[in-house]
Amino acid sequence: MDAISVIRAKRDGGRLTDGQIDWIIDAYTRGEVADEQMSALAMAIFLNGMDRAEIARWTAAMIASGERMDFAALPRRTADKHSTGGVGDKITLPLAPLVAACGAAVPQLSGRGLGHTGGTLDKLESIPGWRALLSNEEMMRVLGDVGSVICAAGDGLAPADKKLYALRDVTGTVESIPLIASSIMSKKIAEGTGALVLDVKVGSGAFMKDLAAARELAATMVGLGTDHGVRTVALLTDMSTPLGRTAGNALEVRESVEVLAGGGPADVVELTLALAREMLDAAGLPDADPARALADGSAMDHWRRMISAQGGDPDAPLPVAREQHVVTAPASGVLTALDAYAVGVAAWRLGAGRARKEDPVQAGAGVELHAKPGDTVTAGEPLLTLHTDTPEKFDYALAALDGAVEVAAPGTDFTPSPIVLDRIG
Amino acid sequence: MDAISVIRAKRDGGRLTDGQIDWIIDAYTRGEVADEQMSALAMAIFLNGMDRAEIARWTAAMIASGERMDFAALPRRTADKHSTGGVGDKITLPLAPLVAACGAAVPQLSGRGLGHTGGTLDKLESIPGWRALLSNEEMMRVLGDVGSVICAAGDGLAPADKKLYALRDVTGTVESIPLIASSIMSKKIAEGTGALVLDVKVGSGAFMKDLAAARELAATMVGLGTDHGVRTVALLTDMSTPLGRTAGNALEVRESVEVLAGGGPADVVELTLALAREMLDAAGLPDADPARALADGSAMDHWRRMISAQGGDPDAPLPVAREQHVVTAPASGVLTALDAYAVGVAAWRLGAGRARKEDPVQAGAGVELHAKPGDTVTAGEPLLTLHTDTPEKFDYALAALDGAVEVAAPGTDFTPSPIVLDRIG
Repeated sequence: MDAISVIRAKRDGGRLTDGQIDWIIDAYTRGEVADEQMSALAMAIFLNGMDRAEIARWTAAMIASGERMDFAALPRRTADKHSTGGVGDKITLPLAPLVAACGAAVPQLSGRGLGHTGGTLDKLESIPGWRALLSNEEMMRVLGDVGSVICAAGDGLAPADKKLYALRDVTGTVESIPLIASSIMSKKIAEGTGALVLDVKVGSGAFMKDLAAARELAATMVGLGTDHGVRTVALLTDMSTPLGRTAGNALEVRESVEVLAGGGPADVVELTLALAREMLDAAGLPDADPARALADGSAMDHWRRMISAQGGDPDAPLPVAREQHVVTAPASGVLTALDAYAVGVAAWRLGAGRARKEDPVQAGAGVELHAKPGDTVTAGEPLLTLHTDTPEKFDYALAALDGAVEVAAPGTDFTPSPIVLDRIG
Repeated sequence: MDAISVIRAKRDGGRLTDGQIDWIIDAYTRGEVADEQMSALAMAIFLNGMDRAEIARWTAAMIASGERMDFAALPRRTADKHSTGGVGDKITLPLAPLVAACGAAVPQLSGRGLGHTGGTLDKLESIPGWRALLSNEEMMRVLGDVGSVICAAGDGLAPADKKLYALRDVTGTVESIPLIASSIMSKKIAEGTGALVLDVKVGSGAFMKDLAAARELAATMVGLGTDHGVRTVALLTDMSTPLGRTAGNALEVRESVEVLAGGGPADVVELTLALAREMLDAAGLPDADPARALADGSAMDHWRRMISAQGGDPDAPLPVAREQHVVTAPASGVLTALDAYAVGVAAWRLGAGRARKEDPVQAGAGVELHAKPGDTVTAGEPLLTLHTDTPEKFDYALAALDGAVEVAAPGTDFTPSPIVLDRIG
């Protein structure tokens, strides 16, 4: 077996055999297949695709490249959630303690943000004292004591994916359904959850710009999970405009706490509850009532215990950016568009995100939305507030917002997109 | 400008701008664009192609990555030949001194073999004392004194191509017309020849297996040469069976000397004369008579002077392999096929070629053919003789020949393919 023959097979439009897939993933993990060979193969897969059986084998080989976690010893059933990434997507923060409050265990192993979408760990690290890095023992203890834990995934899970993901990021081979599906599912299956709900984002702020592609990605991932004995379901959700009213680390923590306190933006509450119901159902707890757990304070109680268990102070004031700049509505009327990608890039340029893995992020930076599509706005009134510690970046952030806002004549009939567009599973 | 946006443009089926091509070739040469990025781009080019204007710019950028030679000071007009590579293709050896004997200057900068086709320098190095590595001054002196020189191309010519060629070799991105054409032509144009004749091989032993693909490659290269002011013409020639009766380093030198002495296999003589006429015509010497230069000994005289000028002894006995193994004809009748690729692989396995750049080659190893397609053979009589210093490889070489020989019933009407299939230019 050699790398060139595997690359040629896919390059020439053939399917890879089980033996070829097992060999190349293993040899790449061991460093025997070079990065330049794997990137040529990734581009061939990007352009020529993989069928269901190839994707399944590719995923299994990436799982087999590392260790698998096992939560069978826990008294509670496990349920996990994965989002393909969106602007203002803080849902994991209220969701994990909410589902724990309803009786399931939520082992949420998360990543950091790269590019225009934020990372869950970056958001939580804006809470003074909070630690993302836990040992396996600490993680199991928090999960046992609180019912939910959000922490960094260890290096031992699907190391082939870790290596391949970093390679795809620099070689223009990210937006491929077989590669995205196998990457997400290898990590999630290796994490050992019993049930998994996928939040597949659709729209300008997401990898998948249209519903058909998102549906294919979702169906592929649901199939992979099911084949590996994980009860998997996917919601396709709107990412044409940011979720909630904030994009940025501490800004999103504040909004998440509002939701846990029974308030918060309607779209965030709706999606949090929809995902919670799916998780509980998949975990075999169909009678649990997440709306009540939000209303009665038990979700907030779990949040506070979870943050404290990881060294954070849930009562500490959150960091605030040094400078603010207000963007006003360009006209009076009905806001019909506030583009998710543009807001995500603006927040990123303000310091909320990173361009390279090793860059730091600003806790207080980001974008605050004072109106959402469907709202009536008045010319000259505040529409957005930009937050940053590096005000010299305001112009650069404002450039990203060029063309992002559309206002229709007052009284125009406009119905914003629903949050949940479809369900697959 | 960044590598990912260039990769994405080609990945998504677009054309690269002049600015993108200039930037990526320069940045890759300087090491700013990584190998894994260039290999992803090479695969995207392999699968999505480049149009004429892109190939021209890509070629120009590779030429601009290094130095250009200039033979304007020579009293003679220059003409060069390039073969896309075939089994038993020793044509450069008799051709260069022959064309010099007819009045043109032939600066033949050559490479070593990799894979199943041999390299011109490897062949000449079987002559005791002969040196491939000359300084620019030595090269110009041999060219001025003898009229032809065959030596190793310096590192300064088209360094971008040198780097990209090595990368393509390990990433399954070799057999792409835009990449092959730009690679060959960037080197040949940087070498500064005034006229160029391309020998584009077609058939099992060549990169191009069918005539249509070979014609496209030839037309692309002729266009590139012409655009750069090089008088360029291409012959499409048969590579379904080895050229001549030998494949192997010293074996091919011996056959070349036979041709220079006025003998040798008919196909080698025919192709040598056809290419010589094209070179002389392109160099503005249409009245020269290469057949006479073979017959009157002047080509042989130039060969002896060229070999001597580079330290070789034209009278020294050539190395002979330690062991021989005879393969007999499997049946009596008309030989209808003797597959070029199979013979090339067998010669390679016997030690005539190398698997990696740093491997040595055996001077005496190779395959000798006792019959050619169209000849009558008798069951049990010698058909091939295998030569090697490593007789433990006989079985491995014989395995390559499995199915390579076809014999039809005695008296079957069979006309072998002509050598020259087409001419473009």
